[in-house]
Amino acid sequence: MFQRILIANRGEIALRIIRACREMGIESVAVFSEADRGAHYLELANEAYCIGPAAASDSYLLINRLISVAEIGNVQAVHPGYGFLAENAHFAKVCRDCNIEFIGPPHEAMSQLGDKVSARAIAMAAKVPCVPGSDGLLTDVNEAVKVANEIGYPVLIKATAGGGGKGMRVAGNEVSLRAGLQAASAEAEKAFGNAGVYLEKFVERPRHVEVQVLADHHGNVVHLWERDCSMQRKHQKLIEESPAPNLPDEVRQDICNSAVRLVKESGYQNAGTVEFIVDKDYNFYFIEVNARIQVEHPVTEMVTGIDLIKQQILVASGAKLPFEQKDIPCNGSAIELRVNAEDPDNDFRGSPGKITKLRQPGGLGVRFDSHVHEGYTISPYYDSMIGKLIVHRQTRDDAIATMKRCLREFSVEGVKTTLPLAAKMFNNSDFVAGTVDTTFVERTW
Amino acid sequence: MFQRILIANRGEIALRIIRACREMGIESVAVFSEADRGAHYLELANEAYCIGPAAASDSYLLINRLISVAEIGNVQAVHPGYGFLAENAHFAKVCRDCNIEFIGPPHEAMSQLGDKVSARAIAMAAKVPCVPGSDGLLTDVNEAVKVANEIGYPVLIKATAGGGGKGMRVAGNEVSLRAGLQAASAEAEKAFGNAGVYLEKFVERPRHVEVQVLADHHGNVVHLWERDCSMQRKHQKLIEESPAPNLPDEVRQDICNSAVRLVKESGYQNAGTVEFIVDKDYNFYFIEVNARIQVEHPVTEMVTGIDLIKQQILVASGAKLPFEQKDIPCNGSAIELRVNAEDPDNDFRGSPGKITKLRQPGGLGVRFDSHVHEGYTISPYYDSMIGKLIVHRQTRDDAIATMKRCLREFSVEGVKTTLPLAAKMFNNSDFVAGTVDTTFVERTW
Repeated sequence: MFQRILIANRGEIALRIIRACREMGIESVAVFSEADRGAHYLELANEAYCIGPAAASDSYLLINRLISVAEIGNVQAVHPGYGFLAENAHFAKVCRDCNIEFIGPPHEAMSQLGDKVSARAIAMAAKVPCVPGSDGLLTDVNEAVKVANEIGYPVLIKATAGGGGKGMRVAGNEVSLRAGLQAASAEAEKAFGNAGVYLEKFVERPRHVEVQVLADHHGNVVHLWERDCSMQRKHQKLIEESPAPNLPDEVRQDICNSAVRLVKESGYQNAGTVEFIVDKDYNFYFIEVNARIQVEHPVTEMVTGIDLIKQQILVASGAKLPFEQKDIPCNGSAIELRVNAEDPDNDFRGSPGKITKLRQPGGLGVRFDSHVHEGYTISPYYDSMIGKLIVHRQTRDDAIATMKRCLREFSVEGVKTTLPLAAKMFNNSDFVAGTVDTTFVERTW
Repeated sequence: MFQRILIANRGEIALRIIRACREMGIESVAVFSEADRGAHYLELANEAYCIGPAAASDSYLLINRLISVAEIGNVQAVHPGYGFLAENAHFAKVCRDCNIEFIGPPHEAMSQLGDKVSARAIAMAAKVPCVPGSDGLLTDVNEAVKVANEIGYPVLIKATAGGGGKGMRVAGNEVSLRAGLQAASAEAEKAFGNAGVYLEKFVERPRHVEVQVLADHHGNVVHLWERDCSMQRKHQKLIEESPAPNLPDEVRQDICNSAVRLVKESGYQNAGTVEFIVDKDYNFYFIEVNARIQVEHPVTEMVTGIDLIKQQILVASGAKLPFEQKDIPCNGSAIELRVNAEDPDNDFRGSPGKITKLRQPGGLGVRFDSHVHEGYTISPYYDSMIGKLIVHRQTRDDAIATMKRCLREFSVEGVKTTLPLAAKMFNNSDFVAGTVDTTFVERTW
């Protein structure tokens, strides 16, 4: 087992990893930018090193500085968290070249799955349903028109290197397809340095259902059930839950088993998430793999009782998974709310600043994962997350009731927050009924 | 179901009940003394009324004021919490006479079980093992000497109205028995207005194991497994856990079933705790019933997934228990630490004052039940509890690891706390091995 781990991240997820390390008796080495200097969570690591100015491109994204700290700090492994370099295959490769274990998938699997067209090919090889679409990248517009005519409009133009909605266009007819192809390709070239696009049938009002998987270095792959993340705004997840509501059991089993097949096919290792969309008839289609721990991993931890960060570290150290598929329960219902310092009255623009007062909820069934405290200053340089409020109760109705009473208790002063939107969401009858899709939040508020 | 409930208590347990009410859609009416005016948790109740000056005898213990608030507040039920009037049979009777449901046992059962000699008689009738001793109250010294000779020294002299160690003496021989009887009786007369004492064989270095029970108004009684509370200091519990470590399964089942038999025999209803001592050979003996919700109830909630306060309210409203014995699991391991504002370097004297800084632990497996926050002032008038830190993990070793990392994160400034003792306890090899008894803390620190 590792004696020391470098945490190549900040904020909430850095604290989450520090906690796991401490419980495992592993020393943690943290890094910080000038903007994060003096943050309380850094005191909980065994060591912390400044790696540069506030801008992430000058600190958290600088591979050479992180490797220097890894050498100075004498670590055997690096945990990248989520965001920043977590899905950067080059970083993963550099770590391994330097003889430092990267706590994540092999860089080859990361590259293959990071490219949407090759990920789609892997899914097809694993007999995992994909949205009908083009076979690989489109080479010219006429081919696109031909494919669109075959699968029927509306169609979705997607960048192979895409993410976060960039390089994506919906086309309802041939005219908008021809225009959209050019626009999406140009946007993708600019955002990712890769102009490649492909076509998919556009699934209207789908649900987002994703499956948590764990794969060790010995060929063992298990799923830890699914999460429903349909409550989104501009491709940003707002609420995540496990299990997914109103998902017939046979569909659920089928999705989870599909995720396992895909992971086995790809040679993936460590923790990962296989994302699907589900249409109103419960047809499900593979979308992409998130080759990292995700923000919403706590809901899976609550229903399974399994510490995912600890498992990531164990797997990276070469350990076999300590459980089999049949040993992984899904107890009760867990829901996570992301609480962000954003202004709901101003298009959810970030609202950085000092938290002058904080009353956080607690009690039965409540977990709050956060690096902030009264007096903490939310920096304008990074994401605006204040914390993740997770509830876990025996039933979904109880979990929603607990979340609502938590929202009554939760008060933050000094910055604007998404708590007012949260109150609306948890009081919404469609959300409570579990019948929402990924367009719901934007259609409703 | 009740529309409104009066909470006849303060602090942590008042907040706990407010939370349960809110999750159930019941309005809560709180009370406060002058010392608690303006406390944050009061804002979370639907209404709050001042009932007098700081001293509990002038506010929280005044039955007539509480009944007045119940009438003004138009409540249908009263939850007494723990402490104050929670085990005052007269208060329970007055509530029922005023047509207000008392969320607790019937006052008759409370009276019978509150008297140790009659509780012992009920236990014997239910074939629950009691420590060998006198049949009822001692009428003269010679009878005591005769009983002591039969059961063998050392013996324990106990007040029938006793509690918290008052009116209790250990006697190793006839001389100290004769002296002790008089002293214990006088102390009991002074403390409880009842001089009655009885004799028991003194069990050396016992463990404290108690069983949580729930009984509805329809004759259904279940247990929710046991808690080990052997980590005590001067009869004050410091750490409580469920399940009890190193308790053979057949003994565990036997203790739990004994508690159910005793509760059935006594006509008890609502939540209660049956306390036992367990000797080194795993013989167990009934000690007393705590006819209320207990401070340590959260550990049972964590392993069973059952909300005990909610069940108390449901039972009081006349509902049948929604589960049977076979449906009540005991998942993983839960440990509670009481964190008090006391000075470990000054014989644990209360350390009231303003909390100038508070960093509370969080994350996976962590529950913190507390009414305090940064800026809160711990009053000298009431108990010194800052909060209850509860951890719940898959194994006891994991729970201890989580507690230790929580202690590393937990910092309180402005008042002295028991956190330094906590760190010693969770690092102690005997505690970690689960081999401690109720004398351990005082023998060790």
